[in-house]
Amino acid sequence: MNNFEYQNITQIIFGRDSQKQVGEKVKAMGKKVLLHFGGQNIIKSGLYDNIITSLQESNVDFVELGGVVPNPRLSLVRKGIELCKAENVDCILAVGGGSVIDSAKAISMGACIDFDVWELFCTQQPISRCLPVGVVLTIPAAGSESSDSLVITKEEGQLKSAYHSNLVRPKFAVLNPELTFTLPPYQTACGISDMLAHVMERYFTDQLNVDITGRMCEAVMRGIMDNGIKVMSNPTDYDSRAELMWAGTVAHNGFIGVGRTEDWASHGMEHEISGIYDIAHGAGLSIIFPAWMKYVYKNHIPRFVRFAVRVMDVESGGNDTDDLIQTAIHRLEQFYHSMGLPTRLSEIGIDDSHFQEMANKCGNRGSLEKLTPKDIVEIYRLAL
Amino acid sequence: MNNFEYQNITQIIFGRDSQKQVGEKVKAMGKKVLLHFGGQNIIKSGLYDNIITSLQESNVDFVELGGVVPNPRLSLVRKGIELCKAENVDCILAVGGGSVIDSAKAISMGACIDFDVWELFCTQQPISRCLPVGVVLTIPAAGSESSDSLVITKEEGQLKSAYHSNLVRPKFAVLNPELTFTLPPYQTACGISDMLAHVMERYFTDQLNVDITGRMCEAVMRGIMDNGIKVMSNPTDYDSRAELMWAGTVAHNGFIGVGRTEDWASHGMEHEISGIYDIAHGAGLSIIFPAWMKYVYKNHIPRFVRFAVRVMDVESGGNDTDDLIQTAIHRLEQFYHSMGLPTRLSEIGIDDSHFQEMANKCGNRGSLEKLTPKDIVEIYRLAL
Repeated sequence: MNNFEYQNITQIIFGRDSQKQVGEKVKAMGKKVLLHFGGQNIIKSGLYDNIITSLQESNVDFVELGGVVPNPRLSLVRKGIELCKAENVDCILAVGGGSVIDSAKAISMGACIDFDVWELFCTQQPISRCLPVGVVLTIPAAGSESSDSLVITKEEGQLKSAYHSNLVRPKFAVLNPELTFTLPPYQTACGISDMLAHVMERYFTDQLNVDITGRMCEAVMRGIMDNGIKVMSNPTDYDSRAELMWAGTVAHNGFIGVGRTEDWASHGMEHEISGIYDIAHGAGLSIIFPAWMKYVYKNHIPRFVRFAVRVMDVESGGNDTDDLIQTAIHRLEQFYHSMGLPTRLSEIGIDDSHFQEMANKCGNRGSLEKLTPKDIVEIYRLAL
Repeated sequence: MNNFEYQNITQIIFGRDSQKQVGEKVKAMGKKVLLHFGGQNIIKSGLYDNIITSLQESNVDFVELGGVVPNPRLSLVRKGIELCKAENVDCILAVGGGSVIDSAKAISMGACIDFDVWELFCTQQPISRCLPVGVVLTIPAAGSESSDSLVITKEEGQLKSAYHSNLVRPKFAVLNPELTFTLPPYQTACGISDMLAHVMERYFTDQLNVDITGRMCEAVMRGIMDNGIKVMSNPTDYDSRAELMWAGTVAHNGFIGVGRTEDWASHGMEHEISGIYDIAHGAGLSIIFPAWMKYVYKNHIPRFVRFAVRVMDVESGGNDTDDLIQTAIHRLEQFYHSMGLPTRLSEIGIDDSHFQEMANKCGNRGSLEKLTPKDIVEIYRLAL
C-alpha cells in the first residue's frame, strides 16, 4: 500500500427535503453568495424558487450567474470571477451537476488571485485559498460535490485542463435523490457511466495488497450497475436514485482510492474526444473504457480476471483466462448498451480523422499500462 | 435509505515514517499540548523519544500524562482536565490505542466546561466546543482515531458510558503500520475482533435498498478476516498490517454506515461484561456476537443468508437456510478461535452469577431485533 494523506471536509446533507437547509448552510459560509447554475431546468422544476426562498429566509444577499454548459467554459468562469470581485461576493452556491460545480470551483479560485485563472491550469501552481463553495446537486455523475478536482475547457484551441487541490472541496453538498427523478434517461445513463469510470480508474492497478480498497471498489461498481438497471426501468424509484446519488459521491471523493496507484488514462483519452466533438463525457467513457481494456488486459491478467469474476459475475470454472476477460468486457459493453449508451465512436458519427491530433494532445498517459500517443491512436482505432 | 448527514474532518496521514510529521501537525493545532499515553510500551519502543524530538523540533511546548489503562477511567480523565486547566493546555496529542484516544477526547471535552465531565455522559447534552485532539495510533482496533465517539468507565459502580459528537473527531491521525509490528498476538486479535464488530453492528439491518453500503461492509469484513489470518502468521508483514490499520479506521469512521439503521446491541451487552470483569473488549465481542446471532437470526433470514454467502463463503446451493446460517456462525467462531480468541464465557472463567445484573444495567437494546433485559440474559446464557 502506498503512503497517503486523506482529508475530506465536505459536509454531506443527504435525503428528502435536504435542499430546505441551503439558506442556513450558505449563511454559515459567507455574507454574499454567487448563485451559479446552468440552464432553465432548475427554474422549470421549481428548485430555483425553493433556493431563493431559503436564501431569503436566512437573509443571505446574493447575485446570480446562470448559463453553465456541459464541459464548462473558461469564458463564463472569467465572467464569474469579475462578478465576484465587483460585487464583493465571499462564497458560491453551485446548483446543478459536475459542470456547474467545476465552474463554481474555478470561479472560487480565480476570485482570490490577481492574475488570470487559466494560469493556474497551465502552471498547476498550488493555491493558498479560494472562496468557499456549497452545492445543491441535481445530476449524480461527476462526483465534484465532494472531490478535490475540476476540469475546465478553454474555447480557443479546445483545450481541457484539470486542477486538483484539497482546498476546492465544497464546504457542503446537499444531495436529495428526488431532485434527480426528472433527469432524462440519456443524462442518467451518462452519469452512471461517469461514476463507474471513476471507480474503474482507481480499481485497475497492478499493486498487490490493496485488497480492502479493491473490494470496496468492487462493491461500488456492482452497486452502480445494479441500481443503474433499476433506475432505467423505474426513474422515480427513490431508493435506487438514492443509491446512485451516493455512489456518485463515493466514486470520486477519493476514499476508495487511498493507498492505490490510480490510472486515469481513459479519462485523459476521453477528454480529447469530448474536447473536440462536445459529446457527453459519460458517452465518451462508455466508448473508451472497453477499448482500453482490450488493449491493455493481456499484460495484467490477474487484475482483469478478478474484475471478470467479482464484478461482472463471469464463472471462473474454465481455464481460458482470455475468454473469461473478453466475456467480462463484452458484458460491460452490454451493460452500457442496456443504458442506451454507445460503445463505438462510429455509433455517434466520429471517424479517425482527428485520432493523431487527439493522441498528440493527450500525450503520455496511464499507470497500469503506460501509454504513448502511438498506443492511444491504437485504442481510438479499437473504439471505432 | 435513511436521510443522513456525514462529515469527517480528520486528516489521515498514513504510512511509513508518518509519525515524523507529528510536531508540525501539533503546531498547527495549538501552542501547548498535553501528551497523553498509556504504559511503558511507547517508551520501550522508542516512539516516545521520536515524538518528543518531533515536538521539540517544531518548538511545541508540552506537558505529559501517562497511565491510561484499557477501559479508560474517569479518574484519570479528571486528572487530565485539571492539568489542562492549570497549565493552559490548548490541544491534546493521544499516543496509543482506543483507550488513550477516548481518554484524550474526554479530557478535551472537560477542559472546556466549568462542571464535572461525567455530567455530559449522564445528561448526553451536546457540547459546543472541545480542545483539538491529534492522534498517533499504535493499536488498530477501536477506530477512535477518526470516530465521533468515546467510552469512559466510572470506577464507582463500574459504569461504562458512551458519548457522541462530531466535534470530538480528531483533527489528525498518524497511522504508521510499522508501529503495530510488535503488538502481541492476543492484542492484535482483540483489535481485529473489535473492528469486525464495528462493521457487523452496521451491517445487520433489515433495511432494504442500502445495497452499496451493505456491499462496502462486506468488503471490509472480508478484508479484516483475510488480513487477520495473514498477520497472525506473519506479524511484521507491512501490507497486512497496513490493511488492518486502515480497516480499523474505515470500520468506525461512519462512512460505511450512512443511511443505515445500525444495531449496537452486541456492543452494549459486551460493555457490561468488560465493565465488571475487565476483560479485553475484543474478547468480549468474540463471545457475544455469535451468541447474539444464534438468538436473533430466525427473524432475519435474508440478511443472515447474505452474510453467510457473501462474507463467510458458505455455498448457497442447498435449500436449508437454517443450516446455511448456522454454518456461517460456526465459521465465524472458527475464525475467532484461529485468532486465539474465546467464543464462550466459560472459556475465560465467567459464570452466570452477574447475568441479571448486567442485563438490567444494559436495559433495552438493539435495532435489528429489539432486546429487553430478559432477551439479554438469554443471550448471555447462549454465550456460556
